[in-house]
Amino acid sequence: MIIVMEKNATPKDIENVCEVIKSAGLGVHISKGEDVTIIGVIGDRRKLAEKPIELMDGVEKTVPIMEPYKLASRTFHPEPSVIKVKDVEIGGNEVILMAGPCAVESREQLLETAEIVKKAGAKVLRGGAFKPRTSPYSFQGLGEKGLEILAEAREKTGLPIITEVVGTDTVDVVAEYTDIIQIGARNMQNFPLLKAVGRINKPVMLKRGLSATIEEWLNAAEYIMNEGNFNVILCERGIRTFETMTRNTLDLSSVPIVKHLSHLPVIVDPSHAAGNWRWVMPLARGAVAVGADGLIIEVHPNPKEALSDGPQSLNPENLMILSKELKQTAAISGRYFRDGN
Amino acid sequence: MIIVMEKNATPKDIENVCEVIKSAGLGVHISKGEDVTIIGVIGDRRKLAEKPIELMDGVEKTVPIMEPYKLASRTFHPEPSVIKVKDVEIGGNEVILMAGPCAVESREQLLETAEIVKKAGAKVLRGGAFKPRTSPYSFQGLGEKGLEILAEAREKTGLPIITEVVGTDTVDVVAEYTDIIQIGARNMQNFPLLKAVGRINKPVMLKRGLSATIEEWLNAAEYIMNEGNFNVILCERGIRTFETMTRNTLDLSSVPIVKHLSHLPVIVDPSHAAGNWRWVMPLARGAVAVGADGLIIEVHPNPKEALSDGPQSLNPENLMILSKELKQTAAISGRYFRDGN
Amino acid sequence: MIIVMEKNATPKDIENVCEVIKSAGLGVHISKGEDVTIIGVIGDRRKLAEKPIELMDGVEKTVPIMEPYKLASRTFHPEPSVIKVKDVEIGGNEVILMAGPCAVESREQLLETAEIVKKAGAKVLRGGAFKPRTSPYSFQGLGEKGLEILAEAREKTGLPIITEVVGTDTVDVVAEYTDIIQIGARNMQNFPLLKAVGRINKPVMLKRGLSATIEEWLNAAEYIMNEGNFNVILCERGIRTFETMTRNTLDLSSVPIVKHLSHLPVIVDPSHAAGNWRWVMPLARGAVAVGADGLIIEVHPNPKEALSDGPQSLNPENLMILSKELKQTAAISGRYFRDGN
Amino acid sequence: MIIVMEKNATPKDIENVCEVIKSAGLGVHISKGEDVTIIGVIGDRRKLAEKPIELMDGVEKTVPIMEPYKLASRTFHPEPSVIKVKDVEIGGNEVILMAGPCAVESREQLLETAEIVKKAGAKVLRGGAFKPRTSPYSFQGLGEKGLEILAEAREKTGLPIITEVVGTDTVDVVAEYTDIIQIGARNMQNFPLLKAVGRINKPVMLKRGLSATIEEWLNAAEYIMNEGNFNVILCERGIRTFETMTRNTLDLSSVPIVKHLSHLPVIVDPSHAAGNWRWVMPLARGAVAVGADGLIIEVHPNPKEALSDGPQSLNPENLMILSKELKQTAAISGRYFRDGN
Repeated sequence: MIIVMEKNATPKDIENVCEVIKSAGLGVHISKGEDVTIIGVIGDRRKLAEKPIELMDGVEKTVPIMEPYKLASRTFHPEPSVIKVKDVEIGGNEVILMAGPCAVESREQLLETAEIVKKAGAKVLRGGAFKPRTSPYSFQGLGEKGLEILAEAREKTGLPIITEVVGTDTVDVVAEYTDIIQIGARNMQNFPLLKAVGRINKPVMLKRGLSATIEEWLNAAEYIMNEGNFNVILCERGIRTFETMTRNTLDLSSVPIVKHLSHLPVIVDPSHAAGNWRWVMPLARGAVAVGADGLIIEVHPNPKEALSDGPQSLNPENLMILSKELKQTAAISGRYFRDGN
Repeated sequence: MIIVMEKNATPKDIENVCEVIKSAGLGVHISKGEDVTIIGVIGDRRKLAEKPIELMDGVEKTVPIMEPYKLASRTFHPEPSVIKVKDVEIGGNEVILMAGPCAVESREQLLETAEIVKKAGAKVLRGGAFKPRTSPYSFQGLGEKGLEILAEAREKTGLPIITEVVGTDTVDVVAEYTDIIQIGARNMQNFPLLKAVGRINKPVMLKRGLSATIEEWLNAAEYIMNEGNFNVILCERGIRTFETMTRNTLDLSSVPIVKHLSHLPVIVDPSHAAGNWRWVMPLARGAVAVGADGLIIEVHPNPKEALSDGPQSLNPENLMILSKELKQTAAISGRYFRDGN
Repeated sequence: MIIVMEKNATPKDIENVCEVIKSAGLGVHISKGEDVTIIGVIGDRRKLAEKPIELMDGVEKTVPIMEPYKLASRTFHPEPSVIKVKDVEIGGNEVILMAGPCAVESREQLLETAEIVKKAGAKVLRGGAFKPRTSPYSFQGLGEKGLEILAEAREKTGLPIITEVVGTDTVDVVAEYTDIIQIGARNMQNFPLLKAVGRINKPVMLKRGLSATIEEWLNAAEYIMNEGNFNVILCERGIRTFETMTRNTLDLSSVPIVKHLSHLPVIVDPSHAAGNWRWVMPLARGAVAVGADGLIIEVHPNPKEALSDGPQSLNPENLMILSKELKQTAAISGRYFRDGN
Repeated sequence: MIIVMEKNATPKDIENVCEVIKSAGLGVHISKGEDVTIIGVIGDRRKLAEKPIELMDGVEKTVPIMEPYKLASRTFHPEPSVIKVKDVEIGGNEVILMAGPCAVESREQLLETAEIVKKAGAKVLRGGAFKPRTSPYSFQGLGEKGLEILAEAREKTGLPIITEVVGTDTVDVVAEYTDIIQIGARNMQNFPLLKAVGRINKPVMLKRGLSATIEEWLNAAEYIMNEGNFNVILCERGIRTFETMTRNTLDLSSVPIVKHLSHLPVIVDPSHAAGNWRWVMPLARGAVAVGADGLIIEVHPNPKEALSDGPQSLNPENLMILSKELKQTAAISGRYFRDGN
């Protein structure tokens, strides 16, 4: 961390700041410029977390230099992490497709979809049992009944499952059924929930919040890892911008950046970002082309009948076309994607 | 709701859409334009919530006309709501100041601050016991111990208290102590939490999410009200934009808009938006000038010693200056603010 | 256009609105709902451009239905436009690479770069002679001298050139030298400039503004086309968001959307969006994977010596790697990219 | 400026960076931390403007410390600037109201409006003669004829006038007529235009761009001042965010921040930000309450007949109400506002 002093800071001001830093067990390095003096802090700035240096007399501002997260950082873990879910490896050489309906609506719908996505090459089955919805009048999911149906689909297809948890009170029941726990975008900074899944021995897929910076996203991963669960998968799903033609703006640049800053794997969700199935296929290709470790895509056997997010769900025909495209796209970066045939 | 058909929609497409609308118990009105046909839906569009009309053949898009919330809407409740907290009325003719430290740090700190803010005219004492923090390495609050200290301060000063709840598992304990339950910006769409406080018989102050539209904010209020708790206070605290000189951009235009759309009172939090005490005083004046029903402001007896958010806390001297300014500002719109003398 | 009346609008209010619409030579269609009446306007709403219907008594709001642009719209021109620049076709089956330095710095630098990019498969040479810079203290470009150097490079390599025009007073001199006129992001709504290049008989590449919606971007294209110049190429270059790890957020979803709404070709500029060469290569692959008609990329023989935008320039080695990747990526969508060998 | 070296930077890397800095005539200060070394640059970093330090081996990033503008900065000009326009002082103790129609539509309309706004206390008459419009099919203004009408209104009322210039080719004609030259939001980074008005001997009001940071805005002012024209007035008019209920989000926090960073006066335009007359009055009060030096407000004798921006124009009755409120609001900060009686 660097502390920039005000133009008219006195030697006494500078001395006081140095005192505070040293008393926290850190080193200081003073650099007098033409207009201002800057003070470099040597050591882990987390030791200063509870000192409001900015308010000391003569201080203009503080500038952080090192990232605030450690466990999620590539600086301290240079090799990419590969997360194993049964025999599926996320973050390795295979591009992983997770697919399924937005919400589990019925046994028939889910089992049918599971077979479809397996054939298309999905290695993980997705489906929401607890649904966070903007309006209280929208369909809220089947709850535990939905989890049972997901488990049955896993048994029939062999596909591990991923489903969202929306509150600490349902972490245990969701963890009992699912293979990967999903934290949704609206809960990216639900800290009690992050801590709760950090104490569970199952991989967690953490979606980026609608207005979360990449640094905040990695800090949220740090919350989970700090509780002992290192199996964190990141998921880019679009950020909120002024553009209204997409539900959110998929930030594909976050993929190479996160892989540069962190060792954690990154999955892309083009369905929620686009909000319209027409843009899902090109964005899915784009995501793999920029280096994503996988995709999570909404599929419905008959999108026109979907109880939620029908407009952004791929139908089976389009999913098969995408499956073929993914093989070619994965190959560009020396990776592979395998369909289910 | 209006359904815009594609240019090349067939008469059969139009007929099918009308069928679906009618089968949901709604009326239709067809309007053939030069280029496109539009279909007006007559009745409550929530009946169509689970029908993905957008996916039907020949449909270009749907355009909502009425707001999706009812209980929070002024359309169905034209008179402004006044929320009573002991003998404090929020949403009435008095401009209400809520003030106190970001976090309860110690008994001494809180009791001292409580006396200071009471003298300045605060009618409600704020203080965080459970703190949501971006990094797991930051101070996380005193928890229930903090609630006890808040209750003691209430006893000593007579000021009702407001404190934040961050998870469903602590709703009961927080509700036991506090007079107003605060839902923070990061939890605005934590739907299980909204439902939980909707079942509590205490007023709730709902902060706007960092990237929440006004409509989503009112939908979140609807979640609480839909469970039976109509005592909802809204709180504007800044939205995330590209500007980095403030922590968030305080959207003061939301105040008159929300008061136009809804009957609920609106409080403004300039401290979190600004992130710097220098901008808190002008923004507090601005908030009252645009018509806010009150303010929530961070105050610390000695900001340089604060364990969290020191840089944005007002010191006692500046709070007293602000108190005087608020009297004049409230008067512009025929309201009043009273200090504690 | 649809006009939504207020809940308490009177029959007289409705009648008055209908009068205004009819007097503009348009038809009306009235639809009475349970809560509100809506009035559909039949015909071209541009005839109402100068009537502030929103202010008439009893009017709640107006909702546009058709897009405001015509010449740029695919509705009225279903076939994609192919823009010819000498023997280069933009918008056809070949993915076009435009490459070169941010700024023309010297004869040697440009001629060397031109040979490099030609070898890598660039079909158009880029280079700035007039540079818009945020600070007046930054390098502003060589001006007409830069144009002369670009023309010499064209003669030597056979590559057509693209360069930016920043003001109406230099449109003629730029047009005299260049093959494609570039309008930069900061000038997307410089209407006199748009009109000026609309009267020139050269293709124009129109960059999306930093905070321009897709609709505003197409409206800006409409300005150029409305003056008679139909050879407009669109260029996505990132939009401004809250994320600070990239200079701008490249909005790759805009590519399939714009190609759905408009017949104009779309080029992607990953260099300016990323602001860092590390992200340029993955984003370039992503852009072609989502369906872009081409790329414009900054290349410098020695980025460390660049006078502007060095950090985001590819060096020759990385450009050659990208060139190979583009061949594979183009093939995914049945298109092709050819290097210069 | 501070240069942060990579964790694995070699002593040679550090030496090379120091060489470059010294060769630009600047000093260096090296600070070795636990993980990284940082290099402080002593002196004016503009000397390094053309050196891409970020690309040197071993460099992680550079962090600017001092603001990039000088002439606009309060650091080098601590006293607030007061801009004189005839006998009107902008930036002094009087809160200045500029008011008038969005566009000059006719002689009658402007003369009538001029009398109205004068009575309400406006000290400057606004009116657009050259109008930048999103669509080429919207009313584009009366051009020089509009300027003549403005001049006539000035003669009749004694009010100095402000009008927008949209291109370098009309700078001379606009400057010939107007008392204050307005640069619109879309032209904030139209650098040839900024330079052109920087060479004119008339005050310039520079609107903030829709997606301009405060720093970019001050850099744009620097462009004008760098040409010799120090009479720059800043105007906050809203920034683009995700919220759609207002045309733009008025950033009232920018007012105290800009006045802290710069000596230039700041005017607020609530009309364009709000896009709806209902929010103009509260936002105008809010603007003065946060410390704005004045307001620019759209007024129309009969908004329902306005050719542009009718929905956001105040009618004469509401302007008179606002006029009274402004007197009270100005007094809060010890300033004054005088109506025309």
